[in-house]
Amino acid sequence: MIRVGIVGATGYTGSELLRLLLRHREVELIAVTSRAEAGRAVSDYFPALRGVCPLEFAPADSPLLNSCDLVFFATPNGTAMLEAPALLEAGVRVIDLAADFRLRDAELWSSWYGMAHACPDLLSEAVYGLPEVNRAALPGARLVANPGCYPTAVALGFLPLIESGFVDPGFLVADVKSGVSGAGRQAKTGLLMAEVGESFKAYSVAGHRHQPEICQTLRAVQPKGAPAIQLTFVPHLVPMIRGIEATLYARLDPSAGVQGAEQLQSLFEDRYQNESFVDVMPQGSAPETRSVRGTNLCRLAVTVPMAQAAERGQTLVVQSVIDNLVKGAAGQAVQNMNLMFGLAEGTGLSHLAWVP
Amino acid sequence: MIRVGIVGATGYTGSELLRLLLRHREVELIAVTSRAEAGRAVSDYFPALRGVCPLEFAPADSPLLNSCDLVFFATPNGTAMLEAPALLEAGVRVIDLAADFRLRDAELWSSWYGMAHACPDLLSEAVYGLPEVNRAALPGARLVANPGCYPTAVALGFLPLIESGFVDPGFLVADVKSGVSGAGRQAKTGLLMAEVGESFKAYSVAGHRHQPEICQTLRAVQPKGAPAIQLTFVPHLVPMIRGIEATLYARLDPSAGVQGAEQLQSLFEDRYQNESFVDVMPQGSAPETRSVRGTNLCRLAVTVPMAQAAERGQTLVVQSVIDNLVKGAAGQAVQNMNLMFGLAEGTGLSHLAWVP
Amino acid sequence: MIRVGIVGATGYTGSELLRLLLRHREVELIAVTSRAEAGRAVSDYFPALRGVCPLEFAPADSPLLNSCDLVFFATPNGTAMLEAPALLEAGVRVIDLAADFRLRDAELWSSWYGMAHACPDLLSEAVYGLPEVNRAALPGARLVANPGCYPTAVALGFLPLIESGFVDPGFLVADVKSGVSGAGRQAKTGLLMAEVGESFKAYSVAGHRHQPEICQTLRAVQPKGAPAIQLTFVPHLVPMIRGIEATLYARLDPSAGVQGAEQLQSLFEDRYQNESFVDVMPQGSAPETRSVRGTNLCRLAVTVPMAQAAERGQTLVVQSVIDNLVKGAAGQAVQNMNLMFGLAEGTGLSHLAWVP
Amino acid sequence: MIRVGIVGATGYTGSELLRLLLRHREVELIAVTSRAEAGRAVSDYFPALRGVCPLEFAPADSPLLNSCDLVFFATPNGTAMLEAPALLEAGVRVIDLAADFRLRDAELWSSWYGMAHACPDLLSEAVYGLPEVNRAALPGARLVANPGCYPTAVALGFLPLIESGFVDPGFLVADVKSGVSGAGRQAKTGLLMAEVGESFKAYSVAGHRHQPEICQTLRAVQPKGAPAIQLTFVPHLVPMIRGIEATLYARLDPSAGVQGAEQLQSLFEDRYQNESFVDVMPQGSAPETRSVRGTNLCRLAVTVPMAQAAERGQTLVVQSVIDNLVKGAAGQAVQNMNLMFGLAEGTGLSHLAWVP
Repeated sequence: MIRVGIVGATGYTGSELLRLLLRHREVELIAVTSRAEAGRAVSDYFPALRGVCPLEFAPADSPLLNSCDLVFFATPNGTAMLEAPALLEAGVRVIDLAADFRLRDAELWSSWYGMAHACPDLLSEAVYGLPEVNRAALPGARLVANPGCYPTAVALGFLPLIESGFVDPGFLVADVKSGVSGAGRQAKTGLLMAEVGESFKAYSVAGHRHQPEICQTLRAVQPKGAPAIQLTFVPHLVPMIRGIEATLYARLDPSAGVQGAEQLQSLFEDRYQNESFVDVMPQGSAPETRSVRGTNLCRLAVTVPMAQAAERGQTLVVQSVIDNLVKGAAGQAVQNMNLMFGLAEGTGLSHLAWVP
Repeated sequence: MIRVGIVGATGYTGSELLRLLLRHREVELIAVTSRAEAGRAVSDYFPALRGVCPLEFAPADSPLLNSCDLVFFATPNGTAMLEAPALLEAGVRVIDLAADFRLRDAELWSSWYGMAHACPDLLSEAVYGLPEVNRAALPGARLVANPGCYPTAVALGFLPLIESGFVDPGFLVADVKSGVSGAGRQAKTGLLMAEVGESFKAYSVAGHRHQPEICQTLRAVQPKGAPAIQLTFVPHLVPMIRGIEATLYARLDPSAGVQGAEQLQSLFEDRYQNESFVDVMPQGSAPETRSVRGTNLCRLAVTVPMAQAAERGQTLVVQSVIDNLVKGAAGQAVQNMNLMFGLAEGTGLSHLAWVP
Repeated sequence: MIRVGIVGATGYTGSELLRLLLRHREVELIAVTSRAEAGRAVSDYFPALRGVCPLEFAPADSPLLNSCDLVFFATPNGTAMLEAPALLEAGVRVIDLAADFRLRDAELWSSWYGMAHACPDLLSEAVYGLPEVNRAALPGARLVANPGCYPTAVALGFLPLIESGFVDPGFLVADVKSGVSGAGRQAKTGLLMAEVGESFKAYSVAGHRHQPEICQTLRAVQPKGAPAIQLTFVPHLVPMIRGIEATLYARLDPSAGVQGAEQLQSLFEDRYQNESFVDVMPQGSAPETRSVRGTNLCRLAVTVPMAQAAERGQTLVVQSVIDNLVKGAAGQAVQNMNLMFGLAEGTGLSHLAWVP
Repeated sequence: MIRVGIVGATGYTGSELLRLLLRHREVELIAVTSRAEAGRAVSDYFPALRGVCPLEFAPADSPLLNSCDLVFFATPNGTAMLEAPALLEAGVRVIDLAADFRLRDAELWSSWYGMAHACPDLLSEAVYGLPEVNRAALPGARLVANPGCYPTAVALGFLPLIESGFVDPGFLVADVKSGVSGAGRQAKTGLLMAEVGESFKAYSVAGHRHQPEICQTLRAVQPKGAPAIQLTFVPHLVPMIRGIEATLYARLDPSAGVQGAEQLQSLFEDRYQNESFVDVMPQGSAPETRSVRGTNLCRLAVTVPMAQAAERGQTLVVQSVIDNLVKGAAGQAVQNMNLMFGLAEGTGLSHLAWVP
């Protein structure tokens, strides 16, 4: 049994971790901390866990964390970088679900997150926990940066195209849409149901923190000598609770000589044939977020729309859907844990989506 | 008073026309037809109109239509082209809210709508009722093709960019999102709340009827000698009832020499300064669909996202929001009617959005 | 023109007042105050009002309020009782949309609202602004207590039954359901879309402030000597934005000798035949909240369900729907204003519901 | 392994059965039939089951059903009564999720369901599958009538009160609310998201089929000589997908001498202490439907609201929440199957609710 702690379990990624770990047969939950709710029964705070979770919230500095094999940080950005070093020192492995260790460049991180980085020396050690790219590095990892929700959906959609060099990396567009749980459990008027229900909008159009994270991932898989990645990334808020859909646009590089949709379909199917959490759907499919709700899956479809003149390069479209709280957060964290501890990658992640 | 008839008033564009026309001070409603509900009180079918609408649904071939000054067709595609010619013959002017007269090319129309066109000779006469482009032609029009909902949102967003030649017309992307009322009042399982609620997806990615309609509009306003329009158009279904948001992507043509966001902001503000139903919002705004809900407004914002290298041409983003049933259908039809009959353009269209 | 001020216009009742008053032809908006947003353009705060409202938010103590004919308080409970007395002194009439002047018993008020009342002497003067009960008192009123949202829906549904003595007042049940805007625009996690969306619950089952308000209204219309009112009142939160539905249960008093559903239908139709904002629907109707959305209407239906043995008294059911922000708040306040100033009761309140 | 078939698996109870049975470790799915989709891959019809379900839909009369140990009918009312007898004859046990075998009185059944009963002789044999009442009868049952969704929520809430004789059975009120999936996967305009979203209404107020089903259950548990059950049952449609909340009202019988809320709390806790799928929450709790979403749980709370005079008998309130598709349909069917085949009652039913 892996002895596990969760720091900051009162938000949405924390509660989702609880849902997954309480039913994970190789995990023993040792400590679940909360600054605000310390001493309160977890099942009182989350009535959905009545009868299932016997723990109380421990204080944020609970010594129990030091006795864990693994600690998940489900805290706001800027917390793990302060607390993880001592745990690592004590031999505890760490998965951070926030952004603290996602960017390898401390200066870039500071410019986007508005604070100095507390342990820039750890950035190069941290493994970016997208198993479909970095699986080999996970068994030995002490510190894993769990990817952002948008970056997971977008990177998995662009990966085969960038790795193959089939598209012009200089004009990528990611039009992404997220349910409101992606904004976390914050008491902001802008997230009230009366504000976000029955409405739709883009936000952070001028720039969003997930853009450099995606670029870093894509750059790392480009063929040698490929032109620079230029990605326009526009997030939107959908009046629903869970789910991300990313519609990705790229222009086929005429020099790559791609022969139609079949070749693209094969490219995607081949790339992901051994990935148990990426499902490449048949031509003509319309992946919907509910088909992955509550699961750790990413479903993809690739299309070359008609009414496109070929002579200047065709635009292709990739659709990518995930559950932002599972493959986009807690589920991927469990997948990473499984790989770090030598378990079957899908342990505890076999949930089926609820439809409807 | 304008004597008005509505053919096919049991769908969503029909009921929205009723809402607007019953409170329009220059309109007298003469006949409201329905094949299925003929003889039934309109206010029995639409309880929201109890006490306001004294009419019964007339049969589809009601002779009252011939005594109208204007007849709106709020029917499925393929109906107006069969019935409008006789009305025009009888001196009745016609606004079709369906697609029958939107494309000037009968063959193109047939290929997208799956039927032969019944009166291709009328296509060249029909005025495409986007007042922001064709206002001058409306006073004399006998036959008006009311634009589609997506084409309205997309065309108004791209117009200043295409007219000015500031962007490369060869790589336009329109990622559009619509509430479910856009699919009409059809008894299809795919539109049940249990199917479309709490989920999000793209659809018709391979090709959608509104793509050629938008291209036709944009081509007509291009500067002489400009390269061909190439538009990738991907619609999505949002789990809400009303509203369209279009996020538009275009690449600034480096040869146009545009100097930053201010110049683009001015371009949009200048283009629409005399348009009472187009609101160009300040830099940094995030137009949301609820801000135009129930109104005939289109709100726009234009942004040049950061993290874009300039040397290969910058990608800019336009956000455009409308209410699909008002500016995207019934409201624009009333706006067209006002112009056809010499009324103030905004008569009967002064509603404010409900927030929340 | 009535010179009008609004104190506290950044919440939902305030914004709804703005929507109604900006289009009211007899009203001139003089001042709109906000403690937090003073100095900011109203249309910047509410983008839906761009181009319509030229005002800036004034500070809470703006002297402009003293120059008004009428001031609306759209503030939290406990504010109007502090500020209204000075305005009344200055000859300004006041409508309070909060609860400060709704209960005539200061002690009862204190026990439910958790503070001492600041001006108990004004309670007997304040007119409870439910025009269907107190219309005659409104023209002369200086101070009007605008009814609560639930009390409006419940009182209008029970009124004919209590006035007539047809039912046993000792066992009334009001099972009421409200959209989330009823909770106001408060930054509470419990009102986030991710918390209240796709879920349903009762709340305040042990006791809710609107229960004594309803009882006070019903007691005032009971026939002499009737038994005491006993009302079980259970509110619920519906995952939608606007609307209240109240399902009311009462037992026919066998001694009243009511002969079936027709007599009840007549009772309701007769009671409300001259009320322009109460619509008694035909037997078998199912009033839905969307049929009154955005309007000042209350729609009612009365039913005697089958499968009820008559010998011990039959249970009847009344359904009552309103828009909580219109007839349940801002619309009723405008209706009261119209009556106070001798205008036609429906001025500025002719909106039709949006369907869908 | 239990060899299982599902007749009619394209609706919501059918797809929910698939979700549960595909992960049930003691079940082998032999045949899944569909009249309309025979021959199609189940995972093509339900993309959420891609990679999990290798079956094709079999025709409705598939001989494979005869080789099953158990067949679930997830068909419209009136189908199982035609097809179950032959299966029973062949030694196949049957659980009907529709209403065919729920009422013991064939004439009453016919009057509510509008057709003659095809096998009235089986009605007395059929076990009403509410394990909390009829557990003992399930191991030997050949034919189980799975309870309706509303009857499950209402009966579990009233049971302790009726069994104990604490309340007057002559004036029970059940105000029940259901998400739209309760209406099934029918292509009706009335269930479109644009019709039922953002609105709330009661329906079938005059009478609903679940009323006699509930009365039958409650009558069976009344103490000898208790007065007749009189239940007013009003269902409502909530703009959400899953979940039922029942708010139940009853009047304490003064002669029962109940001493306050603690005694009621104990009554409920004692009654359900050995029930793994009924959770009696502490005083003051507000059970919400999302706390049981996706699970087989029923959560209850009992309250005696304040502001009630005691002398004429107090009204108490019970709140009961379930997931209509799980404890209200497919989950309870699996619970029944487990009991019929001697498995641990909770096998395959350990899901935790998603929050949010």
